[in-house]
Amino acid sequence: MSLTSTIQRICAPDLELTSRVQGLLDRKTKPAGSLGRLEALARRYVTVRGPAASAELDAAGGRITPPKSCVVVMAADHGVAVEGVSAFPQAVTGQMLANFAAGGAAINVLARVARAELRVVDMGTIGETPPGVMNRKIRAGSRNMAREPAMSPDEVTAALSAGIQLGDQLASEGFTVICLGEMGIANTTAAAALTAVLSGAAVDEVVGRGTGMDDAGLAHKKTVIANCLQLHKPDPQRPLAVLAQVGGLEIAGLAGLCFGAAANRMVVMLDGFIASSAALCAAKVCPLLREYFVASHCSQEPGHAAILRELELSPLLSLELRLGEGTGAALALPLLDAAVAILNEMATFESAGVSIRDA
Amino acid sequence: MSLTSTIQRICAPDLELTSRVQGLLDRKTKPAGSLGRLEALARRYVTVRGPAASAELDAAGGRITPPKSCVVVMAADHGVAVEGVSAFPQAVTGQMLANFAAGGAAINVLARVARAELRVVDMGTIGETPPGVMNRKIRAGSRNMAREPAMSPDEVTAALSAGIQLGDQLASEGFTVICLGEMGIANTTAAAALTAVLSGAAVDEVVGRGTGMDDAGLAHKKTVIANCLQLHKPDPQRPLAVLAQVGGLEIAGLAGLCFGAAANRMVVMLDGFIASSAALCAAKVCPLLREYFVASHCSQEPGHAAILRELELSPLLSLELRLGEGTGAALALPLLDAAVAILNEMATFESAGVSIRDA
Repeated sequence: MSLTSTIQRICAPDLELTSRVQGLLDRKTKPAGSLGRLEALARRYVTVRGPAASAELDAAGGRITPPKSCVVVMAADHGVAVEGVSAFPQAVTGQMLANFAAGGAAINVLARVARAELRVVDMGTIGETPPGVMNRKIRAGSRNMAREPAMSPDEVTAALSAGIQLGDQLASEGFTVICLGEMGIANTTAAAALTAVLSGAAVDEVVGRGTGMDDAGLAHKKTVIANCLQLHKPDPQRPLAVLAQVGGLEIAGLAGLCFGAAANRMVVMLDGFIASSAALCAAKVCPLLREYFVASHCSQEPGHAAILRELELSPLLSLELRLGEGTGAALALPLLDAAVAILNEMATFESAGVSIRDA
Repeated sequence: MSLTSTIQRICAPDLELTSRVQGLLDRKTKPAGSLGRLEALARRYVTVRGPAASAELDAAGGRITPPKSCVVVMAADHGVAVEGVSAFPQAVTGQMLANFAAGGAAINVLARVARAELRVVDMGTIGETPPGVMNRKIRAGSRNMAREPAMSPDEVTAALSAGIQLGDQLASEGFTVICLGEMGIANTTAAAALTAVLSGAAVDEVVGRGTGMDDAGLAHKKTVIANCLQLHKPDPQRPLAVLAQVGGLEIAGLAGLCFGAAANRMVVMLDGFIASSAALCAAKVCPLLREYFVASHCSQEPGHAAILRELELSPLLSLELRLGEGTGAALALPLLDAAVAILNEMATFESAGVSIRDA
């Protein structure tokens, strides 16, 4: 499925459905609006689901099918790692892929707790793809963006297509919510470069310590990124070209997954800085995507706040996370489940015999 | 069990156990500290549990028993309701009690989603206690604090004892986490008065719209509260006397439950403004209690922020809630479950064969 035809499948929100949901919530036994952003989550979920949810509300009983959630962790290596921009050696990308496959990483635990499925996708690591990991390898790591574009336009197209296809596949499996996760040593460098270009924020504002750089490492990382931007002179009006210049294979794959998820009326739960940089890039191509996004948390990586500001999204959780892997997204899933349960299960003033307000 | 002997059972945190937990978290396959406040939750949970958790860590496998959580909703009526400080009629307290018993309220839904048990306690409503609700009625509603103290000292003692006893009972049932919930028309008025006195904040800063007062109603509510403080001249150094003057029966019961929970090494998950005002009052009597508290969210009621500031707690969720009933506390429970699961289930660098950082 091409990007253009996928984007054509992405619908604007049906605002009548949105206000129908709010009308239902306002009849529940609580002061109007008192569940705050939980009510907004219910509105967003039903609106994203669209006609399917509308039909469920029309049926006797009028219950929405609860969310079925999948965490997708896309992994890749980054050529820019040779510039010494990470506190961990590059080998850790592949080792963590094996850890995901074995079930021992944080996201394995948190997906289990959230009763979500987990799919791990190798978009371009240097080593072998371990058993249990989907092999969608575009190439063995991106190129070193400090010297040349990280990816060719064809590689970006292939990575986007892989993400779109996965969105289609997960929709056919009945998932209604996709959590964006990622792993890739040095990928905060790619995300920071992308964010600086696409949000217009200063490099200083978007570069952080990643997995734990010290002060000298942080200063060096900023210099590397500033030099990359100097070299490529990326044009913020051409987000996919920027992605090729300073992005990464897992970031491109996740951008594709955003398109594929929205085209299939799935909610996209953002995670941390890197996953959100992919979402920002996709939303620059198709601004309607923002109606499909939920921001789970705001990372300690400073660039994440710039992305959420640009996407006009507020995080649900205040947890000071900086891990990625989809961990923040998985932690926010119970809130979405709760929002739909409120819509489905709460009594109305009428059914419970509770007086409405004096006014 | 008397308040004094209960307070004597409340232990200071074992900081050696706290750092033992952090040591275990630092061996997990993630950059040190990258799970942020989730790691702090794991530390707090294990530290509160104390020797029992320590023994579990000593055993082969070293797994902590997952949290077993109970939401306690205490309800009461408030004499000050006759002053016209609420948007809803007083009858709603009893109607909502019936709604809790029938399973149709927001907290019923959210406790189910969080797989927590729910206990509803009538601490002093005007009507009959419905079947399925625990009857711990101290009197039929507090007195009108605009004219006289809301409770006598003996009534406060009785309400505190009921809370302490319930803490003991829930501990004997194996619960390790207590969520504080409440219901009572006009109880934001009591909570605002308590908060103004005990936090030192101005009345203007702590009075909000409750269930939805308009501007004129809000101004009237502020006048009523200011007049109450003028009448009673409460002494912030005597928190239980303040509780008698301007508190409420469910607030006193919840304060007692804080003592009872901590004495039994249970975590106390705070909810919104009213529940947190009870916690503040209890912590003014016994500052150690703060080590047992977790702040779930910060209510739209402006006084809640003043309480959390005074307790030096940060909320986990940013949901703009203003319902009470324990809803915010229940929504935060999956985060506590996740924190303990991380400690129990994640692989270590050693076991997963992942390289440690270069440094």
